[in-house]
Amino acid sequence: MTDLSLLPFLDRLADAASEAIMPHFRSLDSIENKATTGFDPVTVADRAAEAAIRALITAEFPEHGIMGEEYGSERLDAEKVWVLDPIDGTRAFISGLPVWGTLIGLLSGGTPTLGMMAQPFTGERYAGDGVSARYTGPGGARALATRSCDHLSKATLFTTTPALFQGAEREAYERVERQVRLVRYGCDCYAYCMVAAGYVDAVIETGLHAYDIVALIPVIEGAGGRVTNWEGGPAAAGGRVVASGDRHLHDIILETLNR
Amino acid sequence: MTDLSLLPFLDRLADAASEAIMPHFRSLDSIENKATTGFDPVTVADRAAEAAIRALITAEFPEHGIMGEEYGSERLDAEKVWVLDPIDGTRAFISGLPVWGTLIGLLSGGTPTLGMMAQPFTGERYAGDGVSARYTGPGGARALATRSCDHLSKATLFTTTPALFQGAEREAYERVERQVRLVRYGCDCYAYCMVAAGYVDAVIETGLHAYDIVALIPVIEGAGGRVTNWEGGPAAAGGRVVASGDRHLHDIILETLNR
Repeated sequence: MTDLSLLPFLDRLADAASEAIMPHFRSLDSIENKATTGFDPVTVADRAAEAAIRALITAEFPEHGIMGEEYGSERLDAEKVWVLDPIDGTRAFISGLPVWGTLIGLLSGGTPTLGMMAQPFTGERYAGDGVSARYTGPGGARALATRSCDHLSKATLFTTTPALFQGAEREAYERVERQVRLVRYGCDCYAYCMVAAGYVDAVIETGLHAYDIVALIPVIEGAGGRVTNWEGGPAAAGGRVVASGDRHLHDIILETLNR
Repeated sequence: MTDLSLLPFLDRLADAASEAIMPHFRSLDSIENKATTGFDPVTVADRAAEAAIRALITAEFPEHGIMGEEYGSERLDAEKVWVLDPIDGTRAFISGLPVWGTLIGLLSGGTPTLGMMAQPFTGERYAGDGVSARYTGPGGARALATRSCDHLSKATLFTTTPALFQGAEREAYERVERQVRLVRYGCDCYAYCMVAAGYVDAVIETGLHAYDIVALIPVIEGAGGRVTNWEGGPAAAGGRVVASGDRHLHDIILETLNR
């Protein structure tokens, strides 16, 4: 059994986050006050949104745990633990770009079983439970399905920036990048949703936190893709992550990274 | 006198482009047929949109010239010449990202006097005539104004990718990039509009065509910014371009590039 019955609750959480965030998106208040104290992309909106989401979870499911980027962890020994990143892609956010998102994930016994990425400016939501996944937004609602891609030479690859890979990790990443058809940088959670929707073939990253990836795993896997760490194990803890739309391409990427 | 009275006509052109493009955005037909013949991001949508725009211009202003990415030039000796790029940011387009745009610019005696960037998925339009500029889209309509930024250490900089700069050009670009607070890659025309809207401070690029930049100059300058080539001269011909929201920052960037 999946947690699909909780999807309407995720929509409520995403609505609350949107209400807290949108007054600050493209508004100078959330940008200018950082400039005086040095660069720190964590905004007022980030904290307001996480507080709003946590309040709703605590009211509805007081027994559940919560792990959030802004306000830390509580009841991590609970069977159900919510994993939150109210604004994933803060650099996109402060640059005015609509490629950040609110990430809401749910772990059941440590496994991601439900997740959503919500982009309130475009009105898009990408949600999944590991078995199926769906899009709602401009153009209506539809099931999400990854596309097939049987070779790196046909693949579109995303990563935040190659500068995040150091030493042997950088060499491993570049072995993949050199072989793909198209590589693009930036986009954070939005790139993973493009994998789920079948427009992009893979994302490779390092240094992720659990809250960067837990919500996205059930979306991509529900759409037919695969998300693991670079060794092929579970990705829910973050760290070095590969997400692919095609499961065979995923094997090729892992093999290339670990050659 | 400006060409502001033509703004409703620009909206009609952008509407026609949107109608031609949107059936192909995030639709597999425009992506998959390229994979068999190697990577070519020019899509069916690109050509259909330019044909639609050109038909409207020719019907309304048969004496005007037209310069387009897809169908070339006609009547370039006319006083008024339209400069078109139906899908600027084809790599974003084929990756499903909403950071491409339709560029429609107008040259009067060789000077850009009117321009629009339209993003039909988000419903945004950024338009200007070099004297004023305005946004319409989610959140309503408002005047566009660049933000002040008096030092590179406070600046957010965009470029398509540093890989496009070669040799001395790369060194010059990196002298700037090393000093800024935040750099991001990608986004093409969308990045210029973020400068016009005051969320980003500068864009530095090389190898632009006239149709990549003509439409954006009246938007950024109408919002209070500046667009020149790397030598400080007119940017309408493309090539190496700097766009800045703050005119003093623009001088600093030119000085740093040419040191």
